[in-house]
Amino acid sequence: MANSRFEYVKSFEQPDVLLPNTWIVVRIDGRGFHKLSDHYAFKKPNDRRALDLMNAAAVEVMKELPDLCIAYGVSDEFSFVFHPNCQLFERRNGTTPSRKLVTTIVSTFTAHYIYKWSEYFPERPLLPPYLPSFDGRAVIYPNNRILRDYMSWRQVDCHINNLYNTTFWTMVLQGGMSNTDAEQELKGTVSADKNEILFKRFGINYNNELEIYKKGTVLYRQYELEEPNPTKSHADEETPVVESKQSRSQQDKIRKLRRKAQVVVDHVDIIKDEFWEKRPWILSGNPGKLPA
Amino acid sequence: MANSRFEYVKSFEQPDVLLPNTWIVVRIDGRGFHKLSDHYAFKKPNDRRALDLMNAAAVEVMKELPDLCIAYGVSDEFSFVFHPNCQLFERRNGTTPSRKLVTTIVSTFTAHYIYKWSEYFPERPLLPPYLPSFDGRAVIYPNNRILRDYMSWRQVDCHINNLYNTTFWTMVLQGGMSNTDAEQELKGTVSADKNEILFKRFGINYNNELEIYKKGTVLYRQYELEEPNPTKSHADEETPVVESKQSRSQQDKIRKLRRKAQVVVDHVDIIKDEFWEKRPWILSGNPGKLPA
Amino acid sequence: MANSRFEYVKSFEQPDVLLPNTWIVVRIDGRGFHKLSDHYAFKKPNDRRALDLMNAAAVEVMKELPDLCIAYGVSDEFSFVFHPNCQLFERRNGTTPSRKLVTTIVSTFTAHYIYKWSEYFPERPLLPPYLPSFDGRAVIYPNNRILRDYMSWRQVDCHINNLYNTTFWTMVLQGGMSNTDAEQELKGTVSADKNEILFKRFGINYNNELEIYKKGTVLYRQYELEEPNPTKSHADEETPVVESKQSRSQQDKIRKLRRKAQVVVDHVDIIKDEFWEKRPWILSGNPGKLPA
Amino acid sequence: MANSRFEYVKSFEQPDVLLPNTWIVVRIDGRGFHKLSDHYAFKKPNDRRALDLMNAAAVEVMKELPDLCIAYGVSDEFSFVFHPNCQLFERRNGTTPSRKLVTTIVSTFTAHYIYKWSEYFPERPLLPPYLPSFDGRAVIYPNNRILRDYMSWRQVDCHINNLYNTTFWTMVLQGGMSNTDAEQELKGTVSADKNEILFKRFGINYNNELEIYKKGTVLYRQYELEEPNPTKSHADEETPVVESKQSRSQQDKIRKLRRKAQVVVDHVDIIKDEFWEKRPWILSGNPGKLPA
Repeated sequence: MANSRFEYVKSFEQPDVLLPNTWIVVRIDGRGFHKLSDHYAFKKPNDRRALDLMNAAAVEVMKELPDLCIAYGVSDEFSFVFHPNCQLFERRNGTTPSRKLVTTIVSTFTAHYIYKWSEYFPERPLLPPYLPSFDGRAVIYPNNRILRDYMSWRQVDCHINNLYNTTFWTMVLQGGMSNTDAEQELKGTVSADKNEILFKRFGINYNNELEIYKKGTVLYRQYELEEPNPTKSHADEETPVVESKQSRSQQDKIRKLRRKAQVVVDHVDIIKDEFWEKRPWILSGNPGKLPA
Repeated sequence: MANSRFEYVKSFEQPDVLLPNTWIVVRIDGRGFHKLSDHYAFKKPNDRRALDLMNAAAVEVMKELPDLCIAYGVSDEFSFVFHPNCQLFERRNGTTPSRKLVTTIVSTFTAHYIYKWSEYFPERPLLPPYLPSFDGRAVIYPNNRILRDYMSWRQVDCHINNLYNTTFWTMVLQGGMSNTDAEQELKGTVSADKNEILFKRFGINYNNELEIYKKGTVLYRQYELEEPNPTKSHADEETPVVESKQSRSQQDKIRKLRRKAQVVVDHVDIIKDEFWEKRPWILSGNPGKLPA
Repeated sequence: MANSRFEYVKSFEQPDVLLPNTWIVVRIDGRGFHKLSDHYAFKKPNDRRALDLMNAAAVEVMKELPDLCIAYGVSDEFSFVFHPNCQLFERRNGTTPSRKLVTTIVSTFTAHYIYKWSEYFPERPLLPPYLPSFDGRAVIYPNNRILRDYMSWRQVDCHINNLYNTTFWTMVLQGGMSNTDAEQELKGTVSADKNEILFKRFGINYNNELEIYKKGTVLYRQYELEEPNPTKSHADEETPVVESKQSRSQQDKIRKLRRKAQVVVDHVDIIKDEFWEKRPWILSGNPGKLPA
Repeated sequence: MANSRFEYVKSFEQPDVLLPNTWIVVRIDGRGFHKLSDHYAFKKPNDRRALDLMNAAAVEVMKELPDLCIAYGVSDEFSFVFHPNCQLFERRNGTTPSRKLVTTIVSTFTAHYIYKWSEYFPERPLLPPYLPSFDGRAVIYPNNRILRDYMSWRQVDCHINNLYNTTFWTMVLQGGMSNTDAEQELKGTVSADKNEILFKRFGINYNNELEIYKKGTVLYRQYELEEPNPTKSHADEETPVVESKQSRSQQDKIRKLRRKAQVVVDHVDIIKDEFWEKRPWILSGNPGKLPA
């Protein structure tokens, strides 16, 4: 169509590209969820339905974007991971705008979260101005080891926060302490201290808490698990390979294969090697064998 | 809380800041709305309810973010404009991350769009995987004149596209032409040609089309209109002033004043000076006088 | 020429563009000049020959790059300013790489500085590893007022540092104090205190110090001075205009005009309006009338 | 020292950081060297003294910056490579500004090039405005394989250009052809064609040309060569390790060790594995054993 003399304003758009051949993590965070969780009366320290809703929305994001190879969620945040070989939005040319990946994920997640809300909270309908929303960011990691350290960072954070919150809310809700007193007592305590408070005062063995609370949620496509191969034990630290010759039709084929795989919702350790060795397709980017 | 040895991964987050004292435009675009509008049977060339839904979601964004001073929408896109004086997300320090503004607006807009859908399309419930979503970008403009040229660019685009679409769909729907034939005939035509096709063949005077289709939609906070002052006719070209001494409490006060103003939905010319001269608060960033 | 399978590595180059229609300041700083000035025995607090060499190198940069409209130097730093209308390195398209401007200026300045060294320090030949070098950065400013505030910032800095250094070195060199004692005594003093120390103890009137030390050095192209026009007193705050229609041949013509003007080396106040009002070509970007 | 009300302009400086744990290549290029080489009558197709001067300046850069682990030069360009573990300019925090590395290298190189000119061209003194200068850029590469592909890209380019230039200038200087005729005849030829022209018409065996012309120049620190170890043949593809615990004193120690090693000027194949396997210290970043 015809252009106008105003069109020069397009030249003010600045490029915003992601380095090729690197892991891309898009992490989204709930905006103002502290206030929101009060308003909709989320249970403390964990509201199972709220977490299930986060996970359900994230599964839909994984389904819509087959280029995603793993996602990890805790509380009101979720990290979505694109493989270095991912060619989404013309990434091969080194011109994938960061904003495109981030806003696509933020918007898709928000859409499903709002859409599914009534399924998880039928008795608490959404009411503006308390509509949930999320912000997001993209971070790139140059190799497998650092990507795994990122995932470990989030899971360690989940553990630390959940142990604290579980202890704090038990002291308040079961122990009848004020928020301030509980906070004061917990200041400076280490994990062992909190475990002891839970066990000695309330008879709670933290190990028996639900895995979803202790480990967070990991999503990935399910193929047949493989036996860890001790001879290539550091496979995961190898540099992802540039599949520069992958044609568009090969990419489409791989996307179709990925769509066929089921997205599973798991609550397991992703810090140790075992998780990654049994599921080599996550770090390799090559779809595995579909389970029989 | 305690940190882990994995925390170094935070250092890979790269800054993404917006130049201080400039206009910020966040433009969002519907993702795959061509397919989506087919699926939900939007009317051609314009679906009034779809536009009203876009506008309703945009009004909510304006209400949630009082730092926004104007917004303009056409088709499945909306541009939201922050004033150079806007101090949102610590902008004063020159450290507002672009991603924060963009993802906040994309997510808030998406949330309201999904939430209000059933109000505008009661007979066409949303059904995954056809959930609407949006991507977005931020662009900065260094002065008033270029900001106004940006707004003019979008409204000219609205006009050009709407004249084309109106003619094309009239030829197809009323004239019984195939899409290909209509496209072929319109190739290379100018505005006058399209006006003539509409008038001579179909008796349609394009000028009588609805303003919302011809002009798009402009949103702003309503204060008392002012008479254009010929002695300061180029007021709008002046450089926005750095309000570096605006304290946090002054900002909060201004935000409160803005929240009190009604957000109006208008379909008027924003290319000529008149619109801006009557509403000097938009370019000045200073709230006007509330209408009696 | 033929390409190789390795050429994909070019896609890792990331864009690095400067917002169109803004002032660009490239500031260079001497690397390790503290050590260097000791090695070549620069005089304290100011070495006139070292400053003259800085200025001579900067004049050559101004001559080689007619798109520069003003430069300001103090100590071992120099700021070079490109006008918003500058079209160097295809800026019109919004694709001027920042690195191109910065490295060009840093390298050209370094070349002339090394080349002219022996002219200013004939008795102190350069000897590696003590070769002078400079680093640099580009900063953009959206309008005239902020550009002028940048220039004022540097000149205020020059004044503050020079008053301190003059007092400190007089106390040490004439007063026989140790560096530590002089530093200690100056801690917390304001300008008036330092003026008094100079005057009362050493009979030095700071106002009589050389202008080059007190004001630093400003370089610009010389045209006929104009009388400040009170009716357009805020001309300098107006937004620079996008000369989007300036053709390549017009640009070349303007460059030629600029090359004809003499680059002057001045030591005057650039904070007050007078300097800018008398030399309107600096902020307007339009060459003035050559002096008879 | 005291600050002024103008200091807010510092907030307009935008960050410009390099992703941690990646290879950084700074490539510099001569500005206008075509014209310059005519002016100073460089020999065609290669001027040995001009190349030796480039190499001598580059060696000085390597000596001044022990964090550089390899450099490669051809014609009027040079690529300097920093290891992923390099902590220069506070890189550990993920805040190394790209501009700092680039301008430091461009300026240091320029300084030595100008300084040493008279040693290599005693009969052709430099004369402004024909002072050599260089621009530069930084590119980051996420792993060893891509860094090696970058180095291979430059050496293949060297070969392709040198074969072309050697043939072209032989046809012109020895064969008496016009530039246009030689260019015309070479259009579309492959390597074998050019080799044949050189051999059949001029009796020149391209293989006998000097290695510095055919292979370019590689600079690195010399330690005892190692025997390629077939069992860890892909060592070079492994991901560089984050030495996050390297203390500042350890870094200083490593820098001292590097300064002790001689910087060698070599003209060898850097595309095949052998070069890298015999000199494992380049990719590992760990200084080797000094030769006896």
